[in-house]
Amino acid sequence: MTKEILKESTFAQDIVTIIRSGYDREQLVDRLKDYHEKDIAQSLELLTNEERKSLYDSLDPEWISNIFSYIEEPEEYIQELGIGRLAEVINEMDSDDAVDLLEDVDEKVKNQLRPILDEDLKADIRLINSYDDDEIGSLITNNYISISRNLTIRQAMHELVQQAGEKDNISTLYVVDDEGRFCGAIDLKDLIIAREHDELDDIIIDSYPYLIDHEKISECIEDIKDYAEDSLPVLNGEKKIIGILTAQDVIEAVDDEMGDDYAKLAGLTAEEDLKETTFESMKKRMPWLIILLFLGMGVSTVVGAFEGVVAVLPIVMCFQSLILDMAGNVGTQSLAVTIRVLMDENLTGKEKMSLVVKEMRVGFGNGLILGALSLIFLGVYIGVFKGFTMGKAFMISGCVGVSLLVAMVISSLVGTLVPMFFHKIKVDPAVASGPLITTVNDLVAVITYYGLAWLLLIQCMQIV
Amino acid sequence: MTKEILKESTFAQDIVTIIRSGYDREQLVDRLKDYHEKDIAQSLELLTNEERKSLYDSLDPEWISNIFSYIEEPEEYIQELGIGRLAEVINEMDSDDAVDLLEDVDEKVKNQLRPILDEDLKADIRLINSYDDDEIGSLITNNYISISRNLTIRQAMHELVQQAGEKDNISTLYVVDDEGRFCGAIDLKDLIIAREHDELDDIIIDSYPYLIDHEKISECIEDIKDYAEDSLPVLNGEKKIIGILTAQDVIEAVDDEMGDDYAKLAGLTAEEDLKETTFESMKKRMPWLIILLFLGMGVSTVVGAFEGVVAVLPIVMCFQSLILDMAGNVGTQSLAVTIRVLMDENLTGKEKMSLVVKEMRVGFGNGLILGALSLIFLGVYIGVFKGFTMGKAFMISGCVGVSLLVAMVISSLVGTLVPMFFHKIKVDPAVASGPLITTVNDLVAVITYYGLAWLLLIQCMQIV
Repeated sequence: MTKEILKESTFAQDIVTIIRSGYDREQLVDRLKDYHEKDIAQSLELLTNEERKSLYDSLDPEWISNIFSYIEEPEEYIQELGIGRLAEVINEMDSDDAVDLLEDVDEKVKNQLRPILDEDLKADIRLINSYDDDEIGSLITNNYISISRNLTIRQAMHELVQQAGEKDNISTLYVVDDEGRFCGAIDLKDLIIAREHDELDDIIIDSYPYLIDHEKISECIEDIKDYAEDSLPVLNGEKKIIGILTAQDVIEAVDDEMGDDYAKLAGLTAEEDLKETTFESMKKRMPWLIILLFLGMGVSTVVGAFEGVVAVLPIVMCFQSLILDMAGNVGTQSLAVTIRVLMDENLTGKEKMSLVVKEMRVGFGNGLILGALSLIFLGVYIGVFKGFTMGKAFMISGCVGVSLLVAMVISSLVGTLVPMFFHKIKVDPAVASGPLITTVNDLVAVITYYGLAWLLLIQCMQIV
Repeated sequence: MTKEILKESTFAQDIVTIIRSGYDREQLVDRLKDYHEKDIAQSLELLTNEERKSLYDSLDPEWISNIFSYIEEPEEYIQELGIGRLAEVINEMDSDDAVDLLEDVDEKVKNQLRPILDEDLKADIRLINSYDDDEIGSLITNNYISISRNLTIRQAMHELVQQAGEKDNISTLYVVDDEGRFCGAIDLKDLIIAREHDELDDIIIDSYPYLIDHEKISECIEDIKDYAEDSLPVLNGEKKIIGILTAQDVIEAVDDEMGDDYAKLAGLTAEEDLKETTFESMKKRMPWLIILLFLGMGVSTVVGAFEGVVAVLPIVMCFQSLILDMAGNVGTQSLAVTIRVLMDENLTGKEKMSLVVKEMRVGFGNGLILGALSLIFLGVYIGVFKGFTMGKAFMISGCVGVSLLVAMVISSLVGTLVPMFFHKIKVDPAVASGPLITTVNDLVAVITYYGLAWLLLIQCMQIV
């Protein structure tokens, strides 16, 4: 009986019901085989300690290892397993799942485990840990099938059947030469439909895409997505396969990359976790805040130069925040668009120019509309509520409107050029652009607005 | 000879070299079989029209259909194919690839194609197009294998071999009952290692997760990621499989979701494309800009109430932008963190409270530090450059510092509560929160700052 994925808790609850139905081990195993390991993983939270321990005894270590790979925070369950059983379970895990699990295991427990874990697995774990978090090598798994290029079709099928007992990722088989170097891949479907006396060479794709262990994930990710394969081989310096990257790893990597960018746009230096301490969160945000503070102080000194204007015509200061806010928002919009475009496409100089021009046009168009709206509504407001004649009121609101237009056009320009500049000098535009754009926009807006007010209203129009 | 993925253009260039080497058709096909279709797709841009046409003649339609599925903008190449060939190619495509390709085809050409495309494919295409872009059904493909539950192992293997000729997604086989309803799935590896006289039922996972066609992608996506499968079946109202969702679709969907959120955080109503017209871009951004404008006008009227303070002590207006900017930035940081957390986790009321409290603590901590920095640096600036005594200068900068602190704490609070509120009433917090947070922060900052200036400096301290 299949159930709707959104009611996933129903699956987990069914499993709990089964576990509590008092079946003997054989019947229990038979029934649980009809469920996805993720659902069994989810049911664990709903069971008591005792029930879980009884379940661990009923299922074989390989099955438990698959279930555990779906659990995000296994610390609790790890303790329930006991060292011997834990070692058995870990020995059945893929290297990447084992690495993830061991991150949540105490040093003390690790010391007890070390002597009883498989040597091969330990070597694979050490391999993954030898890479930085931003390198491709840190994402690999040892869960793949590789065969020699010298086999016949029949021997290859035999290898497949042999290795499929332990390996899940079978839709692509990787081929190595006599020295163990990567020399191509075989689509499983091609092997399945091949006739017995075909040459293996005929179905090997020699020029199959691959990744290098030390490459940065962020640099490869667009290519990886484009190839749209379920898995891609990862090679070391000697061109030997050290593991594969699966589509699931790509999904996680894409999620992380975007989450990172999202955080940067808001001025956070990395994605924040609920569990971070207050101090850690403060440390993450402080850099940008301090930079903005001092840049803001700089803007304040510039505003200070126009103190005279405000002393004479205090009403103009009412609309400063309006103009700065609108300019800031327009700049952020252009920034967001430009960053996304820079990320996805490889633009020529000509296309970049046209993006800048287009952004300025959008800024101009929106600025015109908003400038006109400000002129009308603020003019009415000033005239009616602030005791100026309608003529003078609209002159003041006209000042606001024009400054708004100018500020928004400059904002669009800056919001596009600054990230492009940072992208060119290989600095992450998402991180670096924010404070620079805010400051430039503030300066332009303030100088335009108060400058215009001084010029037009005080000098020319003698409004005061 | 395998080549590094980052030098993908090397693969494509190799292919161009091969194509230009004057091989006859059989030799050309033999050599090109060693390359990934994405690389062949990429090589097309580097060929001349003539060379491409000659290539289309050399390769069979199925191969061309695979190559075309990797091309993002196939309009140019479609024209080169000619109607007859184009129809042959489309007939070999998966339904989702066909839908994508036909989006780039003129109405005129579509009318010519319609009579010659396969009826089955047309039905599948109509099915996909019957769903909205945000529904699961819009992402399905017909590229999957389904078998009857009444088969023996041997018959199932036979079906597999038969269907694998046309279907690539073979790592999971979907099982249907006599009425054609979905009743479970089989992992290919289980079928491969099964012994001939095992029961098919033994390897069918009955309670396999599935998706419903009309569900919203954004609501399912976390679950889909958690199940970590290469594909998941999509069922209609009658519980029949209408297609599958592949891991590649998930990668694209995750990319799009995050891109969408990213755009919303910056006040864009959807991700923007390079190719959009100026007018379309203006339309996308205008809603938020207009809302912000009128909210900004509202803030201006509140600032207007403090005109008297500025008239008497003009220097205070210099630091208004500083306080508003800092408050705005802190609010955006809290907003970004809260939105990410709301997206990923299912929080209890208690956890939400603790997030709010933590954010306020971070705001307070950062506010203290920044307030102190402002007090010191601005105090010196005012005393040295603006002709106030040091005592009075530090009183003024103290005002700024305290207002900064208060504004940042309130900002953190608002930046957390507002998205939580919108999330609760099922409005997308990423879209709705921005303007509300900006306005509330501006109001709090302005009232605090000028209020404090009025109270402390003018009333109590008689600074002027």
